[in-house]
Amino acid sequence: MSDTAPFDRRDLDFHLHQVQDSAGLCRYPRFAAHSRETFDAVLDAAQSLALSAFAGHNRASDVQEPHFEGGRVHILPEVKAALDAYADAGFPALLTDADEGGMQLPYTVALACDAMFVAANVATAGYALLARGVANLLKVHATPEQCARYRTPIVQGRFLGTMCLSEPQAGSSLGDIRTRAEPAGEGRYRITGAKMWISGGDHELADNIVHLVLARLPDAPPGVKGISLFIVPKFRVGDDGSLGARNDVQLAGVNHKLGQRGIVNTFLKFGEGGDCLGELVGAPHQGLAQMFHMMNEARIGVGVGAVMLGVAGARYSTAYARERRQGRHPDQKDPASPPVSIIEHADVRRMLLQQKAWSEGALGLAIYAATLVDVQAQDPEPARRRDAHLLLELLTPVVKAWSAEWCVKANDLAIQVLGGYGYTREYPVEQYWRDNRLNPIHEGANGIQALDLLGRKALMDNGAALKLLLREIAATAAQAGAVPALAEHAAALARYAALAARTTGELGAAMARGDLRPALANAPRYLTLVGHLAVAWSWLRQALAAASATPRSDAERDFYAGKLAACRWFFVHELPTVEHEARLLSALDRCVLDTRPEWL
Amino acid sequence: MSDTAPFDRRDLDFHLHQVQDSAGLCRYPRFAAHSRETFDAVLDAAQSLALSAFAGHNRASDVQEPHFEGGRVHILPEVKAALDAYADAGFPALLTDADEGGMQLPYTVALACDAMFVAANVATAGYALLARGVANLLKVHATPEQCARYRTPIVQGRFLGTMCLSEPQAGSSLGDIRTRAEPAGEGRYRITGAKMWISGGDHELADNIVHLVLARLPDAPPGVKGISLFIVPKFRVGDDGSLGARNDVQLAGVNHKLGQRGIVNTFLKFGEGGDCLGELVGAPHQGLAQMFHMMNEARIGVGVGAVMLGVAGARYSTAYARERRQGRHPDQKDPASPPVSIIEHADVRRMLLQQKAWSEGALGLAIYAATLVDVQAQDPEPARRRDAHLLLELLTPVVKAWSAEWCVKANDLAIQVLGGYGYTREYPVEQYWRDNRLNPIHEGANGIQALDLLGRKALMDNGAALKLLLREIAATAAQAGAVPALAEHAAALARYAALAARTTGELGAAMARGDLRPALANAPRYLTLVGHLAVAWSWLRQALAAASATPRSDAERDFYAGKLAACRWFFVHELPTVEHEARLLSALDRCVLDTRPEWL
Repeated sequence: MSDTAPFDRRDLDFHLHQVQDSAGLCRYPRFAAHSRETFDAVLDAAQSLALSAFAGHNRASDVQEPHFEGGRVHILPEVKAALDAYADAGFPALLTDADEGGMQLPYTVALACDAMFVAANVATAGYALLARGVANLLKVHATPEQCARYRTPIVQGRFLGTMCLSEPQAGSSLGDIRTRAEPAGEGRYRITGAKMWISGGDHELADNIVHLVLARLPDAPPGVKGISLFIVPKFRVGDDGSLGARNDVQLAGVNHKLGQRGIVNTFLKFGEGGDCLGELVGAPHQGLAQMFHMMNEARIGVGVGAVMLGVAGARYSTAYARERRQGRHPDQKDPASPPVSIIEHADVRRMLLQQKAWSEGALGLAIYAATLVDVQAQDPEPARRRDAHLLLELLTPVVKAWSAEWCVKANDLAIQVLGGYGYTREYPVEQYWRDNRLNPIHEGANGIQALDLLGRKALMDNGAALKLLLREIAATAAQAGAVPALAEHAAALARYAALAARTTGELGAAMARGDLRPALANAPRYLTLVGHLAVAWSWLRQALAAASATPRSDAERDFYAGKLAACRWFFVHELPTVEHEARLLSALDRCVLDTRPEWL
Repeated sequence: MSDTAPFDRRDLDFHLHQVQDSAGLCRYPRFAAHSRETFDAVLDAAQSLALSAFAGHNRASDVQEPHFEGGRVHILPEVKAALDAYADAGFPALLTDADEGGMQLPYTVALACDAMFVAANVATAGYALLARGVANLLKVHATPEQCARYRTPIVQGRFLGTMCLSEPQAGSSLGDIRTRAEPAGEGRYRITGAKMWISGGDHELADNIVHLVLARLPDAPPGVKGISLFIVPKFRVGDDGSLGARNDVQLAGVNHKLGQRGIVNTFLKFGEGGDCLGELVGAPHQGLAQMFHMMNEARIGVGVGAVMLGVAGARYSTAYARERRQGRHPDQKDPASPPVSIIEHADVRRMLLQQKAWSEGALGLAIYAATLVDVQAQDPEPARRRDAHLLLELLTPVVKAWSAEWCVKANDLAIQVLGGYGYTREYPVEQYWRDNRLNPIHEGANGIQALDLLGRKALMDNGAALKLLLREIAATAAQAGAVPALAEHAAALARYAALAARTTGELGAAMARGDLRPALANAPRYLTLVGHLAVAWSWLRQALAAASATPRSDAERDFYAGKLAACRWFFVHELPTVEHEARLLSALDRCVLDTRPEWL
């Protein structure tokens, strides 16, 4: 078959350099040593490593999933080999300061690298990306001594890490966690409790595992305001960085998942033997805020993971559809005529175009959000930092939940294109579908994201974030309105933006008068409304870039024509569906609220 | 947890006896010995056997899937035990004449039994249902001698069977099959070729396997008009019914599927050693027509399989949501208050209601279609037989494809309700999702069903079938219009029926003037339009039955209230989405046609 690499570097470059001006981030002092060339070099290295060390064992690590035997977790050797190569190439330090030996790159570039690794092997990449999240959090909230002991080895690729939030009885509702931390002198705390769904919770892929654990101090107020954050290493670490005795963190079980099987998912018990020591990060009772500080990036990461699995399925099924020959056009009645490539069949082409429209549309939004992370952190103008922050707050649940929802659907279409073959484990698309199915669940279930978006983000500061988004959308619409081929889409975008604004106003008014439950009852429909609008905007930006580009080859011409076709598809086939969502939201539809549990 | 049986017998009875008058089928001479009581007795037996012999190994036969080793296919022993018990109870002869020892029941009752078996274990049930399809086909097309040799042992539960249609290069496009049949004297034919995706293609679950094989005779015209049907047994059968030598049918490979793993799926080679003998069924070149004679029932079977997996997921996730406690209502700000059952959360309840609306709505339609099979076969009035035939032709692709599409979505929601737990193999919902994913693919891919519906069924005989359906819908709408609680839905149903009629007219006109490709380009949207209309109609019929029922207990009252709530959900949240489909269809939207393959 033609190119079946699970990602398209050309498309990533298009987003980074033609839709956005990522190299423009080099205007910030932190990135002054960088340029388009250094970005390209890192992306080249990521592309090469993703294909050479990650993609090859994607299926094998699904089939031979990690298992617990003889007191240890066994993981396919290729996983460690890939992570070692990743560490050797310096990827754990993409974001790290140069004076710590890091690359000091923008998050935008890191996310583009991540995209290639997760497309190649979402499970193996997961170990590394979790560890980066731990390092990022420690940088902001931990002491220099803690950073030296726990963070430096992570960015050097010697330690990995986990986020220990959920417990068996508390996933979406973190206020109900029960893990406890008792002062044990010398700044140490004795941790007792159980944590569920911990990815990378036990293994021998690194010298140590740094668990970040949410727990309650004895004087903690109830709910989310009484949660503190602790560093709990698998092996204790001396002040000189030497590894000491094993901490009392026990693997109580390995979860057997539907997908993403290559990354071990664990049930951990802390302090069963009474001897689990941890260190408090920052001030007491700040755990949730500290964790949430990293949550936007984690959720953008989930979003881009969902997107890239969507892209991988789209690419595989497209290559397959070009080669596989079967059937004839509906107006070809001669049974002796040769069969055509199935990409010639309208419905097959529809399934390819729809996958492209969902996944590449969401990819544009994810990379935009990544840039907001950089602007929020680096811009010298407080107003620009604030705007970026507001937009990021608003768009993060959309990038996470919309991408997860629609890119699982994209993978479903990839299976359908391959037919019976797609339903077998001999082809990669069924694994993409299974792997992707985690994304609507973890890092904040999609239903919770919708409540976050409607109940908090859209209305915060008098709707300041949404107003900013609508202003950005209006600017794109104005620009596209001047391009004849895009004028119709521009007008539609403005129309649907107004619909979103009006609907938000109505829901806000309902909440203000106390109709909280009816206003929130259909929150996922609100997320779809805002998500479709944001992805349509992403497509119009891509279409503007494509329309103004000068193709240097037939392949380039096809690439841009594909962007315009997918944009048109999204505007004609996808965006109008939100009228129905808006109607139900405005009506404060009570179908669900009026249905009593006992009727189900 | 509360009742987690994978089906609800109460709901099947509701469809059979309150929405429809299945016992009324006993007015036909063929069923004169039957009554509601005999139907109930058979359904009781099926219910009991499904739960005792089929449900228990549903997970085990997924985990320990059939494998080929040492020259034979190894299958979990529970599968044979279940099929033996099924045979001992006489289920292979549900439809068989009483004078052959069969139960001579209506297909409607058989389908209701099937529903319970497939909900309990779609893979194990698959062996039996395939065999019944073979027996049915032989009854209509084979000679009495062939029936004695091959059919009688099937209905006695001694033989199983397969349908060998697809080949590696020809699945949706059967006109391109290459398997050949050469006359070998004495009414025998030498078969050579390869068949792909053959469920139940090799095993030791029965004394013999009767393969029904599509192949070409030497003088066959090209395409679908040159296909003949052959009986090819695994072991040759003497005139006295004795088993002879093994026929030259070789297992060339076992396919490893995403789901439905318990039923072995094979790649078979016929006549590799030059010694595969088969018998022609009926006249030469009639194979496709003969096969299609059984196809409506096979497709209703796929539809009901999809539906029942949807039901199974809905029931499990509902029971789980009642018990699992987490979180609080959005207006409950006290973190020390106890968590509520997650069924209290609007979005969880939405996901349960939506599963119910899709799966029970489609179940009503499938049972209606099953009744059409009986009316078509039994009614003494030619006009009524013809009407039933027309409606069945129209509704079969809807029952197959709509149910498959939407009930996979239902299973997706069941996973989401369970959250992280739903993503593990410790809970049944992920398997339902995987198992169900086959249904949009096999027995005619959904895209092909859509072309069949729009390109043939909706327009045949001047749109006679659609007119009949619209007449039935109008009658239900008139009846519901007189019930105040349903009047609004009745008006909506009439409105959307008119929309479907108008859209069909426009598409028919486009085809008539030669715009075949644009008219067919969005065929799946047409299937959704007709499917949503038909399922809305199914819901209004259920609502009428529920509204007129006299509940005899609180549980009954809740049952009927649930029907009315799900009906309302479907009319308010689902049905209006087809306006968008109709708009695109009427516009002969060219987004896909205008997208060149090389742009993707």
